[in-house]
Amino acid sequence: MDSKAYLLQMNGAGVHGKTAVQPKPLSGTGVPGKGVPGSGMHHVNVNGSLYPAKAKSRRQRWEVKASEMANNTLNPIRAIVDGMKLTPNPDKPMIALSIGDPTVFGNLPTDDAVLQAIKDAIDSQKYNGYAPSVGYLKSRQAVANFYSCPEAPLEAEDVVLTSGCSQAIELAISVLCNPGDNILVPCPGFSLYKTLAVSMGIEVKLYNLLPEKSWEIDLQQMESLIDERTSCLIVTNPSNPCGSVFSKEHLQKILKVASKHCVPVLADEIYSDMVFPGCNSPSLASLSSDVPVVSCGGLAKRWLVPGWRMGWILIHDRNEIFGSEIRQGLVKLSQRILGACTIVQGALESILNNTPQSFYSNTVSFLKSNSEICFGELSTVPGLTPVMPSGAMYLMVGIEMKHFPDFKNDVDFTERLVTEQSVFCLPASAFEYPNFFRIVVTVPERMMVEACARIREFCRCHYRPVHRDSNDLDQ
Amino acid sequence: MDSKAYLLQMNGAGVHGKTAVQPKPLSGTGVPGKGVPGSGMHHVNVNGSLYPAKAKSRRQRWEVKASEMANNTLNPIRAIVDGMKLTPNPDKPMIALSIGDPTVFGNLPTDDAVLQAIKDAIDSQKYNGYAPSVGYLKSRQAVANFYSCPEAPLEAEDVVLTSGCSQAIELAISVLCNPGDNILVPCPGFSLYKTLAVSMGIEVKLYNLLPEKSWEIDLQQMESLIDERTSCLIVTNPSNPCGSVFSKEHLQKILKVASKHCVPVLADEIYSDMVFPGCNSPSLASLSSDVPVVSCGGLAKRWLVPGWRMGWILIHDRNEIFGSEIRQGLVKLSQRILGACTIVQGALESILNNTPQSFYSNTVSFLKSNSEICFGELSTVPGLTPVMPSGAMYLMVGIEMKHFPDFKNDVDFTERLVTEQSVFCLPASAFEYPNFFRIVVTVPERMMVEACARIREFCRCHYRPVHRDSNDLDQ
Repeated sequence: MDSKAYLLQMNGAGVHGKTAVQPKPLSGTGVPGKGVPGSGMHHVNVNGSLYPAKAKSRRQRWEVKASEMANNTLNPIRAIVDGMKLTPNPDKPMIALSIGDPTVFGNLPTDDAVLQAIKDAIDSQKYNGYAPSVGYLKSRQAVANFYSCPEAPLEAEDVVLTSGCSQAIELAISVLCNPGDNILVPCPGFSLYKTLAVSMGIEVKLYNLLPEKSWEIDLQQMESLIDERTSCLIVTNPSNPCGSVFSKEHLQKILKVASKHCVPVLADEIYSDMVFPGCNSPSLASLSSDVPVVSCGGLAKRWLVPGWRMGWILIHDRNEIFGSEIRQGLVKLSQRILGACTIVQGALESILNNTPQSFYSNTVSFLKSNSEICFGELSTVPGLTPVMPSGAMYLMVGIEMKHFPDFKNDVDFTERLVTEQSVFCLPASAFEYPNFFRIVVTVPERMMVEACARIREFCRCHYRPVHRDSNDLDQ
Repeated sequence: MDSKAYLLQMNGAGVHGKTAVQPKPLSGTGVPGKGVPGSGMHHVNVNGSLYPAKAKSRRQRWEVKASEMANNTLNPIRAIVDGMKLTPNPDKPMIALSIGDPTVFGNLPTDDAVLQAIKDAIDSQKYNGYAPSVGYLKSRQAVANFYSCPEAPLEAEDVVLTSGCSQAIELAISVLCNPGDNILVPCPGFSLYKTLAVSMGIEVKLYNLLPEKSWEIDLQQMESLIDERTSCLIVTNPSNPCGSVFSKEHLQKILKVASKHCVPVLADEIYSDMVFPGCNSPSLASLSSDVPVVSCGGLAKRWLVPGWRMGWILIHDRNEIFGSEIRQGLVKLSQRILGACTIVQGALESILNNTPQSFYSNTVSFLKSNSEICFGELSTVPGLTPVMPSGAMYLMVGIEMKHFPDFKNDVDFTERLVTEQSVFCLPASAFEYPNFFRIVVTVPERMMVEACARIREFCRCHYRPVHRDSNDLDQ
């Protein structure tokens, strides 16, 4: 090999060819490094010698610490569950009502059409290479077609495919919020919002859901939290952990607050259309005439394949308030790690178009039936206050702690429920909502019935009536 | 439903039950929100009235801007390519030698054993639910077994599965670096390191690779960049974009510098074992007795399925320098968006164990053959200086710009190569290394031959000999 060119370059002042041979900046090509903080040409050092004298301060010994971001990435569910002593009663088989994964008991398989779509995608050998960072155009178009409606039309360019709904939420928060901003998050609510926000230096303000109003938002309190650094309102509908579904009227009121204070909405609609028969659930965006909405969703729950990590962002921007800046921001952020597995992307059009309606309706019928069993059983247990859900796959149960003096709190209560009855429900402290626990209603019916019977027995053993002369308000 | 409990709670001082009924902190359960900046109970406001008077400063009009992180997420390849006018010669079919995706021409399909493993995973119906955030234990064990060697043993707990090697790199940088730190990155090098780092406020210092030494690192210059805020040295081996493979001796010298200044290493080994016959390539970690190494890899390149987004981090920590803190940090960060598609995770053990050796050797034989064709052709083209690779799937070609006065730079050169000859090579400005271009050698042989002939013709048209009376050093 002829190395003449390199020898020439090495005779120049710089360290390699680029500084010696090409000192003039490249024009008009958006060269990386120009104007980017910290991206300077650090290897060019020509003051007297090629390299500086040994720097004054370097590390003399090993000291590798985890970053602040890692240390600030907190998982409340893990923090609570890992601190619990979960030793089941050896005489009773364990029933876990704690895991928000509809696949664990095998009673809710995905549809054959979904599996066939994936196998077809594999056989085609067309989906092994890189997809665009926002997903295949064809797959984005399929999602747009599936969710488009006259009130909230969608084109392929309004869809960003992501590695699960978690990445959709992460991208949405990342594009809308700077460190020091704050976001409004439901309480009780899905813990990921806070996990992500806190790790990014974004403040979380909790707005209250009202159990006595089927978990509608306390709108006045929510509005009171808004200030000029509020960059996003997160609305989860249907709700994890509540299983609640907002009415059209309530959604309109939420939008009114957002509109009044010019706060964009992140609608976590991963449970969209998982709504019990008789209950209507429009998407938030379909009711908005001005408020820009990013709706996050995915295959995970409705198609019962959470492990596949197929999520999406739907951009609804009737009035061009997001404009190209937010769209471009999402594209840029999507390029950091790319998105969903191409096999699943390749199957997406077929999954959305060919899954039979009966699959969806069978799922929600089962969830409704199990919810009714659970609610019916627990609403007659003294000391418990279940709230009947209307969708998703959860049911929240209040614990009237004053009737259970044996226990300090919901964590204590649920821990002992494992010890004595081998039933595990997630204490709602994991959702920043003590004195409740969450039940997952995807378990087989006979396990749901058995679990409720054991919860009844547990409460019967520990329930204490409150004496008439005590002051309830001070409990 | 009995709503007595709520009525009681609503009579308290707080907004809902948790403040009224449960004022004492939960003990010993790591309750979220305690001690986390910005996580306070913002909904509790009992100073006189339930809610504050209307906040002074809220937004009066819509003003939604993309975050600084989004704006600082820069993709140099896109920045350069999007600025180029790429209009092929209508008389010649386009040959793209620019795309680092081995699947685009269909001549390098993955092995049937890989496809069968995926279909088996689907049929098992065992891999539809959530995996642990770091991946299934069985799959992590399979990766550990595959890469373990006596000098660098691996257990399942040393493996974190990720959504592609990009996420592996992102997690590794995220756990090791804080904003304000700096990382050492090869030049020329894969642009993602800088894209990720700059978006996180981490400074990038470029160390030089030396083309005249088959792209070995200029170790003295690299060492000169290290200071006390240097939190990571990134080593790409085999190299994208260079196709170079470091010798054992050179790797040992790199480790010596890292050891001397106590800088942990991120080894990007996504092209590991994609090394031409006759060339040996130990992993960096197998040579380290003290320097802690996170090695990032995945299925993408060696198994020819980059779209599947199956990556991993291998933690090598002989002397417990990372300790549990870095491991825990990786676990925490993995919980932000979870990792790889469970179907691919479920197939991983079978993919690693059942892909025949002939598949691997056929791939590298093809890459070597194409590289030799390309190098052989271009090394006799006046004005070009190709560097023969030893692995990966790239070949870098120097442009002696003084012989091509028609062009300002490598971007201009490669743009006109498209216009005149319908051959697209990526200008190495995209790797911060002007006056070179990168050729991807995965294209079918006949296209490689044809492309080289066209490049020769292009150079013949534009080459100008340098007059003897000019001073080369001033060019």
